[in-house]
Amino acid sequence: VRFDLILVGFGNVARRFVELLDEQRTALRRDFDVSTRVVGVVTRHAARLASPGSAALGAAPHSESHDRRGTARSQSRSTTEFIRRATRAHRASARGGRLVVVESTTLNVVDGRPGIDHVRAALAGGAHVITVNKGPAAFAYRLLTRAAARAKRRFLFEGAVMDGVPIFNLARESMPAVRITGFRGIVNTTTNFMLSAMERGERFDDALAAMQRAGIAEADATLDVDGWDAAAKVSALANVLMDARITPHDVHRRGINAAIARRADAALKNGRRMKLVAEATRRGTRVVARVGPRILDDDDFLTHIDGRQNALVLTTDLLGDIAVVQRGSGLTQTAYALLSDLLAIARDVRR
Amino acid sequence: VRFDLILVGFGNVARRFVELLDEQRTALRRDFDVSTRVVGVVTRHAARLASPGSAALGAAPHSESHDRRGTARSQSRSTTEFIRRATRAHRASARGGRLVVVESTTLNVVDGRPGIDHVRAALAGGAHVITVNKGPAAFAYRLLTRAAARAKRRFLFEGAVMDGVPIFNLARESMPAVRITGFRGIVNTTTNFMLSAMERGERFDDALAAMQRAGIAEADATLDVDGWDAAAKVSALANVLMDARITPHDVHRRGINAAIARRADAALKNGRRMKLVAEATRRGTRVVARVGPRILDDDDFLTHIDGRQNALVLTTDLLGDIAVVQRGSGLTQTAYALLSDLLAIARDVRR
Repeated sequence: VRFDLILVGFGNVARRFVELLDEQRTALRRDFDVSTRVVGVVTRHAARLASPGSAALGAAPHSESHDRRGTARSQSRSTTEFIRRATRAHRASARGGRLVVVESTTLNVVDGRPGIDHVRAALAGGAHVITVNKGPAAFAYRLLTRAAARAKRRFLFEGAVMDGVPIFNLARESMPAVRITGFRGIVNTTTNFMLSAMERGERFDDALAAMQRAGIAEADATLDVDGWDAAAKVSALANVLMDARITPHDVHRRGINAAIARRADAALKNGRRMKLVAEATRRGTRVVARVGPRILDDDDFLTHIDGRQNALVLTTDLLGDIAVVQRGSGLTQTAYALLSDLLAIARDVRR
Repeated sequence: VRFDLILVGFGNVARRFVELLDEQRTALRRDFDVSTRVVGVVTRHAARLASPGSAALGAAPHSESHDRRGTARSQSRSTTEFIRRATRAHRASARGGRLVVVESTTLNVVDGRPGIDHVRAALAGGAHVITVNKGPAAFAYRLLTRAAARAKRRFLFEGAVMDGVPIFNLARESMPAVRITGFRGIVNTTTNFMLSAMERGERFDDALAAMQRAGIAEADATLDVDGWDAAAKVSALANVLMDARITPHDVHRRGINAAIARRADAALKNGRRMKLVAEATRRGTRVVARVGPRILDDDDFLTHIDGRQNALVLTTDLLGDIAVVQRGSGLTQTAYALLSDLLAIARDVRR
C-alpha cells in the first residue's frame, strides 16, 4: 500500500512522525508492504498541497504556497477548507482507501474544536484519520465513529492516551468479550513528574518549568496542572472502553497547585504518596468520572508510579484487574502512536 | 460461526472453559456470531466422540464410550490417535475451519510431549488448536507455527503466560513495527505468593500447601519451586516475542527452597525484596534467558508485584519500557485465555 498523507498540524509530534517514517522505511516496506508520501501540510500559519501527479512534498512546509495571517477562527475555518480541497485533489487515493489525514493539532478543552471539524472534513473527503489530539475522542467519539463507519474509513487515536502504548487497541482487539467496568490511573506526565519532584523538595514553579523545558508540558501548562489534560483522557477512555457518553466537562476535576502540592511532601513523611488520579466507574447506567489529587497508601498499585511513568488499571469482569504501565514517555513514543494507527489501516486495506 | 470443539484434557481449566462458554452464550452469539458444541472429549482415563450428525456431547465425559487403563506412554499415544480419529470424523467442519482442538494437558518439562504431538495431530487433521499448555510454544514454537501456516489453521496459546492477559496478542497485533529487545518479569504465581508469605513469617511448606489448596500450584509443585514453570514461560515468550530458538532447558534456571526463602525475610528487613525473576536479553544474535531468585531494590518495578500478581516488563526500541500486570489470577482468567483464542479464530473465519 502506498499511503498519501496530509499533515494537519506540523509541530514536534508530526515532525518526529515524518522522521520515524523515514527511519523505518525499509522495515515498513519489507514487513508491511507500506510506503508513504506527504502530499499536503497545513499549519496555523501556512499550507501547501502537492498536485496528485507531482512528487511528494519535502517534510517541512518551508516554501508555503500561501501565507495566512488572521484570527484563530478564520484560521481553523481555512484549515478545514484546506482539508476539503486536499481530499478532493487526491480523490483517486481517497477512493482506494490510501489517503490518510494525520491530525496533530492541540487540545481545545472548551469544545474539542477545530479538531472535531478536521476529522469530519477528512472522513467526508474519503480519507482515514489518525490523530494524537485527545479532543475528538473526548468530545465526539460516538459521532466520529459513526461518521467513519458510514464513510468506510478508520478514525484512530491511539496516541490520545499513554502515547503509543496500545491501550485502545488492547481493549478493542485483544480482550474480546471482556467487559471493562471501570479504570483508575495516572495519565498526565507533567503533574506526576511535578509531584515526584516536589516530594524531593523542589518548588512547584521550578518543577513545572523543568517539564516545559523538556517539551512534555502542554504549551498552555494550565491544561496539565488544572487537570484538563487528564480529564480529556478520562473522557476518551470512558467513551471508548465503557461506552460512556461524556465530555471532559462531565469529569469531576481538581488539579494541583503550590498549596496542594505541599501536601505531597507531608504525605511522603507518613509513608504515603500524593498522585493525580484519573478514574471512572459505572453507577447504574451512568459512568462517573473523576480527576483529582489523592493520598495513596503504600500498597496501592499507583503509589509506585513515579516521575515520567503513566499507568492505567482496568477493572474487568472476566480478567480481574489488569494494569498497563508506560515506563517512560517522549516524542518517539507519541509519534509511534501515529505509526501504529497507520499500520492498523494498512492491515485493513490488505484484507 | 458454529465451532465444533474437541477437548483434549478435561481438568479444572477445561471444565471452567465449558462453563464460561455457557455463561457467555448469549453475548457470544450476539456480539461475535459464535456458537459452540463439544463433539469430543479425551482424558487420560476416558474418551468420547460424538458422530457428526448427532447432538453435542454433554460437557462432562461421564459416560465414556470406552475406558482406558495403561501406561502413560500408551495413553498419550492413544490420545493422539483419538485426535486423528476425531478430526476425521468431523472432517466437514474441519474443512470449513470450524473444528477446534482445545488442548489443556499439563506441561511436561522433559520434552513438551505429548502436548506437541496433540497440536501436530490436530493441525494435520485440519483443526485449529488453542491451548493453555506452555509446552508446545516453549519447546516447538517454530515447528508448530510452520505446521499451522501450512495447514492454514491457527495455533494459539494466549493462556500459556499470565492466563488471559493478552500478552502474545499485544506484542503480535498491537505493537506493529516495534522490536522487543528483552523482557523481565514475575510469571509464576505460586513462588511469588510463597515469597510474599514467607516475608510475613510463614514457613516454606505451609506457604506451598496454601497454594496447592487454592488450586494454583501445579499438580507437581516442583515445577513451580524449581523454576521449571517460569522457565517454560520464558522460553515461550522468548521464542514468540524475540524470535529466539530455545527450549526450557536453555534457560539458566534456579528455583527457591526453604534456605533461599529465608533470605526473603532478611531482604525485607533491609527494605529490599526477594522475587523469582524471569528474564531474557539479546546478546549478539543469541537470546540469553534466566530464571532465579533476585534481591530487588525498592525502586525496581517488580519489587511491588506481590502475592498473586504477575508482571512482565517489555523493553522495546520505539516504545521504551512497557509493563503489563495481572493483578489477580484464577481459573476464570485461564479459561478466558481459551475463549479469547477462540474469538481470534472466529474473527479470521468471518473475514
